[in-house]
Amino acid sequence: MSTKQLINRMVILGLGLIGGSLAKAAKERGLVAEVVAWGHREASLKLGVELGIIDRYSLELSEAVAGADIIVIATPTQISEKMIHQLADIGVGDCIITDVASVKGNLVAAAEAAFGRVPARMVLAHPIAGSEKSSVTAAKADLYENHRVILTPNEQTDPAALSLVTTLWQAVGAEVVSMAVDEHDHVLAATSHLPHVLAYSLVDALVTMEDRREVFRFAAGGLRDFTRIASSSPQMWQEIVMANREAVLESIEGFLSHLNTLKDHIAEGDDQQIMEIFTRAKAARDDFTEMLASTNATRKP
Amino acid sequence: MSTKQLINRMVILGLGLIGGSLAKAAKERGLVAEVVAWGHREASLKLGVELGIIDRYSLELSEAVAGADIIVIATPTQISEKMIHQLADIGVGDCIITDVASVKGNLVAAAEAAFGRVPARMVLAHPIAGSEKSSVTAAKADLYENHRVILTPNEQTDPAALSLVTTLWQAVGAEVVSMAVDEHDHVLAATSHLPHVLAYSLVDALVTMEDRREVFRFAAGGLRDFTRIASSSPQMWQEIVMANREAVLESIEGFLSHLNTLKDHIAEGDDQQIMEIFTRAKAARDDFTEMLASTNATRKP
Repeated sequence: MSTKQLINRMVILGLGLIGGSLAKAAKERGLVAEVVAWGHREASLKLGVELGIIDRYSLELSEAVAGADIIVIATPTQISEKMIHQLADIGVGDCIITDVASVKGNLVAAAEAAFGRVPARMVLAHPIAGSEKSSVTAAKADLYENHRVILTPNEQTDPAALSLVTTLWQAVGAEVVSMAVDEHDHVLAATSHLPHVLAYSLVDALVTMEDRREVFRFAAGGLRDFTRIASSSPQMWQEIVMANREAVLESIEGFLSHLNTLKDHIAEGDDQQIMEIFTRAKAARDDFTEMLASTNATRKP
Repeated sequence: MSTKQLINRMVILGLGLIGGSLAKAAKERGLVAEVVAWGHREASLKLGVELGIIDRYSLELSEAVAGADIIVIATPTQISEKMIHQLADIGVGDCIITDVASVKGNLVAAAEAAFGRVPARMVLAHPIAGSEKSSVTAAKADLYENHRVILTPNEQTDPAALSLVTTLWQAVGAEVVSMAVDEHDHVLAATSHLPHVLAYSLVDALVTMEDRREVFRFAAGGLRDFTRIASSSPQMWQEIVMANREAVLESIEGFLSHLNTLKDHIAEGDDQQIMEIFTRAKAARDDFTEMLASTNATRKP
C-alpha cells in the first residue's frame, strides 16, 4: 500500500474484534512498523500472531507497553478503567494512549484519578463499528471503512497526539469527528444504550408476562428486527450501562415520559395525538434511513 | 396446477397487497373459478384486472358481492368494521365471510352489532405475512407460503365454512392455526402492536429530546433495526392500536412496569439483577432466532 508509516510500535491491550481489526488494518496499510498485543488469553494472542494480525505479544503489561509509541486500550468497558490505572502505575512517558470504548466519562474519571488529570497525550476514541462476532478471528482490515469514529479531546489535549490518532483512523478508512465527553455519552445513551435497554426489557417482559413459546410462536418479522439487539452480550451491555449510568437513566426517564403520554392518548382514544406521534416518528425514521443509506451499512453500538 | 377448485366465486373487498396476493395465489392454483373485487379506487381495480389478479370488479358493493361463495374483507382495520355492517345491510345469505385483519375483537363486536351475533359462516382470519409495500402491484402468489394464518372460530362456527377457509389458506401454502379471539388479540398486542408503539415512541422521543440531526448522525446499526417498524404506515397502526385498545394498553402497562424495575436496578447499581434480566432476554431472543430460522423468513405485523 502507498500510505506512509505513521507509527513505529503500536500496542493493543485486549485483542478482540475491535483491537484486532485496527491492528490488521494498520499493518495491511503499512501505517505501523510493529504491532504488539497484551491480554490474558494466550490462545487469542497466539492466534493473532499466526493470522499475521500482530507481530508479537506479552502476557506482562509492562513488557508489552515498553517502547510503545501508541497504546490502544481495546478491553471491555470496566477493564479499560483498570488499564488506565495500571498504565499510570507503570508509567508510559510520552506514549500516546487511546481506546475504543463505548463510554467516555468513566475513562476520563479513571484518568483523573490515576494521573491527576487526563494526560495531554491521551486521546479517547469511539469507533462506531463492529459486528455480532467479538473474537480476533473475526478481525477485518476493512471494518472501519466508511464508519464514524468519535474523538473526545479537551483543551489540554496535545495537538500532535490528536493529529496522529485522527490520521490513524482516517488512514484505515474512518470518518473522524470530535465532540465533548459529556455530549458523546449523552448522544450515545439516547441512540445506542437506551435502545439496548428497551430491547432487553421488552424481550424479558414478554417471556415473563406470557408463556414464552406461545408469544414467540406467532411473532412476526417486526419483532425479530426490533429485538435483534437483545442478542448482544449481556456482560458487555451491563458494563456499558453502568459506565454511563447517569446519561442512561436520563434517557430512560425521557422515554418513559414519552411512552406514558402516548399511553394516555391511547387510553383516551385521542386519534389525532396518536397520528401526530406516529407520523412524526415515521418521518424522522425515514430521514434516518436516507442518512444511513448515504453512509455505509453495518454499524455497531 | 393440480389442486382442485374449491370455490366458484370469491369476492375481495379492498384490493391491496394482502387481498391481491390471496386472489393471485388462489387463481394461479386453480382454487377459484372467478375472482371479483370491490373497492373505492377504480385505478387499482383496473390494474388488478390488467395484471390478471382478478377477473372483474365493481364499485358498487351489492353488485360486487352478488352470487359470492366467499367474501374476503381485505380493507384497513377500521373500514373492515364498516364493511361488516354494510354486508349485514345488503344481506349475503349463506355466503362465507372471512377477513385478513390484524385485530379480531373489534370485528366480532361489529358482527354482533350488525348481525345480532357472529354469523355461523363468518370465519375471521389473520395471515401473519406481508411486506413493506401495500398496493396491488406488489401482490405475490407466494406471499403466504410457509407463513402462519390464525383463525378464530367459536363454537357456533359452521364446520363446513371453517373447513373451506382452512383449506383455502393451506392450499396457498400457509400453516393454519386456531385460537380464541381474546387470545389472538392479547398475543398480537404483546408481540406486534406493543413493539410498534415502542418504536414510534422511541423515535419520537429521540427527535423531541434531542436535536434530530445530531442524534441520528451518530446512530448505529442497532438503532436502525430497532426502529425499522417505525417506518410503517401511521394510519394503519393508529387503527390497529385503537381497534385493540384494551390489550395494547395492558401490554404497555406490563412493559412500563418491567422497564421501571430495570431502571431501579440501574439506579441502584445492582449489577446482578441487570445481568439476570439481560441474560434471560438474550436466551429468549436466541431461542426466537432459532424458531424463526426453522420457519420462513419474511413476516409481518
